[in-house]
Amino acid sequence: MNCTVTIIHTVGDIEMAYGQQTQRVIQAVRTKISSRALEPGEKLPSIRGFASSMNVSPSTVVEAYDRLAAEGIIFARKGSGFYVSPNTQPFTVSEIGPHLDREIDPFWVSRQSLDTGSEMLKPGCGWMPADWMPTGSLRKALRTLSKADDHLLCDYASTRGASNLRRLLARQFAAEGIEADPNQLLLTGSATQSLDLLCRFLLRPGDRVLISDPCYFNFQAILKAHQVEMISVPYTKTGVDCEQFEQAILEYKPRFYVSNSSLHNPTGVTLSPQAAHQILTIASRHDLILIEDDVFSEFMPAMTPRLTALGGFDRVIRLGSFSKTLSASVRCGYIATKPEWVEALLDLQVATNFGGPSPIATELIYTCMNDGSYRKHMETLRMRLAKARREVSANLAEIGIQSWLMPEGGFYLWSRLPEGVDSAELARAALQQNMVLAPGDVFSPTQSMGHFMRFNVSQMGDPMTYEILSDVIANL
Amino acid sequence: MNCTVTIIHTVGDIEMAYGQQTQRVIQAVRTKISSRALEPGEKLPSIRGFASSMNVSPSTVVEAYDRLAAEGIIFARKGSGFYVSPNTQPFTVSEIGPHLDREIDPFWVSRQSLDTGSEMLKPGCGWMPADWMPTGSLRKALRTLSKADDHLLCDYASTRGASNLRRLLARQFAAEGIEADPNQLLLTGSATQSLDLLCRFLLRPGDRVLISDPCYFNFQAILKAHQVEMISVPYTKTGVDCEQFEQAILEYKPRFYVSNSSLHNPTGVTLSPQAAHQILTIASRHDLILIEDDVFSEFMPAMTPRLTALGGFDRVIRLGSFSKTLSASVRCGYIATKPEWVEALLDLQVATNFGGPSPIATELIYTCMNDGSYRKHMETLRMRLAKARREVSANLAEIGIQSWLMPEGGFYLWSRLPEGVDSAELARAALQQNMVLAPGDVFSPTQSMGHFMRFNVSQMGDPMTYEILSDVIANL
Repeated sequence: MNCTVTIIHTVGDIEMAYGQQTQRVIQAVRTKISSRALEPGEKLPSIRGFASSMNVSPSTVVEAYDRLAAEGIIFARKGSGFYVSPNTQPFTVSEIGPHLDREIDPFWVSRQSLDTGSEMLKPGCGWMPADWMPTGSLRKALRTLSKADDHLLCDYASTRGASNLRRLLARQFAAEGIEADPNQLLLTGSATQSLDLLCRFLLRPGDRVLISDPCYFNFQAILKAHQVEMISVPYTKTGVDCEQFEQAILEYKPRFYVSNSSLHNPTGVTLSPQAAHQILTIASRHDLILIEDDVFSEFMPAMTPRLTALGGFDRVIRLGSFSKTLSASVRCGYIATKPEWVEALLDLQVATNFGGPSPIATELIYTCMNDGSYRKHMETLRMRLAKARREVSANLAEIGIQSWLMPEGGFYLWSRLPEGVDSAELARAALQQNMVLAPGDVFSPTQSMGHFMRFNVSQMGDPMTYEILSDVIANL
Repeated sequence: MNCTVTIIHTVGDIEMAYGQQTQRVIQAVRTKISSRALEPGEKLPSIRGFASSMNVSPSTVVEAYDRLAAEGIIFARKGSGFYVSPNTQPFTVSEIGPHLDREIDPFWVSRQSLDTGSEMLKPGCGWMPADWMPTGSLRKALRTLSKADDHLLCDYASTRGASNLRRLLARQFAAEGIEADPNQLLLTGSATQSLDLLCRFLLRPGDRVLISDPCYFNFQAILKAHQVEMISVPYTKTGVDCEQFEQAILEYKPRFYVSNSSLHNPTGVTLSPQAAHQILTIASRHDLILIEDDVFSEFMPAMTPRLTALGGFDRVIRLGSFSKTLSASVRCGYIATKPEWVEALLDLQVATNFGGPSPIATELIYTCMNDGSYRKHMETLRMRLAKARREVSANLAEIGIQSWLMPEGGFYLWSRLPEGVDSAELARAALQQNMVLAPGDVFSPTQSMGHFMRFNVSQMGDPMTYEILSDVIANL
């Protein structure tokens, strides 16, 4: 690699030199580069277009572009616009600095939630507190595992991953009315890895993928890592807007649509059977692949027929994991698809992970799921979460934050902030009060959710949460 | 995705119709497509060029191309040659059939080793039998873990992975004379995942990467998955041929060179300090990044200064794992590089794995490595392996198979087969006798190692092994 590279500097050292607005634009470009939304050599957004999307004046964008050009990060091409310099490296040293410096992008919430200590309040994070998890079953499973066969403790996994867990999943599918052979199941390291593997298989740089607006922020991160174009369609209280969904398919010919059918992240919407049928019909009409990220369905009080249940594996790919319900420390996810696609995915999994996920991990999951106390735990948990959703929704309402919808399950409340409060500003200010929030725009491919915030009810038992929130809002 | 795709058929159904040679060429093209060495729409090698590289007559290639064109897998463009059909899917249904059908490619050994049962003899596989591993330490660590903190059992990892294990690795580096801050270490799911992550960061489709011939077959698999061009340089008993190494750098401007500095897979060569210094000097002269895959160094009787020790992290990236020495079931690897690159890799690891590797996995590794009995185990193991290398080498010599070199450690013997014996044919025949072998050409980017075989001495305690080998050779 050519080592005469341009390093993207920390925000701090230019903060003073430029106006807030200019600096916001500069950092936005840096983030696009570091997150690979912009590749070296790629053309930057037009000045007018970027100005309106950032909601600043064109002159501000001009100033920002000129400054970045002066730093050698981008360069101007006569009459054709600005481009990322070919030897600009896609990483930003600003990340070494205090995270406060970091532009709020899809990685913002992940890294804040994953790396900040337990002293922080985390209404923004994507999982439950450890003491809400089935630790009893896990400890029991670990003791059992300590007596397991040498092979289980030392050998690599088979390319598909442990057959006992695949058979168990196949039985669960059968209970849903989905006929799946264990060989149609591929175990992976996580739902994230499942989607990443599918992207490797289905996508090529420049392809288009359909997502919802809002959607799980890490979908955007994965798709950016695969250098594909994201097309988004508004998400309503009954699911994706079907008219615009079909429109987008016709116009952009995306390779697939990825979403959650039950307890959509962040909105909490669960598709009605009719809605699922409608999406499937449109997808069939235009031969579109549907990827159903199913990580939250176990939180539903009752099973509702989802895309896979209605469509089978002809065009629907189901992926899931055990991170939300069982443990995020035991990394394990899966992909369910047609046999020949599993076969194709195997080589990719061998190349990139050398076989299936940790046998120790899959055995722990298998043992827990066969443990009666785990099923009891889930029943109790659903009730506990229902209560928490009601209480947190009421507490938030008292400080002017309204739930957009009351989900049928899970731990998310997608909520509208008081008039005039920007969720990114609120999140940045809250971080200084040791509180991690999940601002709406990190979920929004169109950056149009600035008035929304995603709250995790299981992380909001401490009354302090609401005091800090209202203080911070008051002092914005 | 357009579903009117061409499926690549199993070899079986055309085997009869065509001559061995033609079928070999046809399957080679299929493999290139399924392994993504050839993308849909991409131009096939010229008839003359492919003929000489496959060592067949041009007319054989013509016949093969015509046949593939008839099947719609490729098409001819007047005066410009043959191209992969745009809707040919890069997977091969032949993989559903008996594995015997499968062309011997870099995935062949992986999948045979990972998926065949314990009834098989596996001189070809890349790990030791479970009863050679430190199972005592593992069981102890699991019992300890069953009493661990709830957070450890349930939470996601931090983006870099557990700090206690990173500190321990940093101390090991210090003992090697390498100054590394724990923040320069990124824990991953495996050495394979480490290299994959680095490829995502450093490579773009069409880039070139330098490897040795022979080299670890999965390097080729990963690089193919990233659609880059592999440039290979012959490997000698003292390491890579330095003259050709520098020549290749000048001619092809590769992004990096990846190899094992100690106990090179498959040859078992360990670089002398002089050789390491020479490679580093050439790399510095031409500003080349070196990736040092260090998974085998713990098997060395004494530590020898390797690339990272000599060059630091300026241009050397160290990666490793615990799969060979501790457990392949506990998935954990690492990357050591400069701080700003770790920062850049973090976002990629968040996007594709949602944070660092399983805290349960990293805690197991950490506990074992701090367990005195593990260190004792490693000392005993080194002696046991030394004995096994001598014995197996002698046993193989008796049936005319000569070790190319006696490695200073580890479990591989790179061996020359008797005159006229083709290792791929031998491997295919041995598989019918329930024996998995690692034929030379899966390690050879130039397919020029057909007279070599890689043996794993820890898997060859059963005298049957040698009987079967000599029988199969006799009946080829």
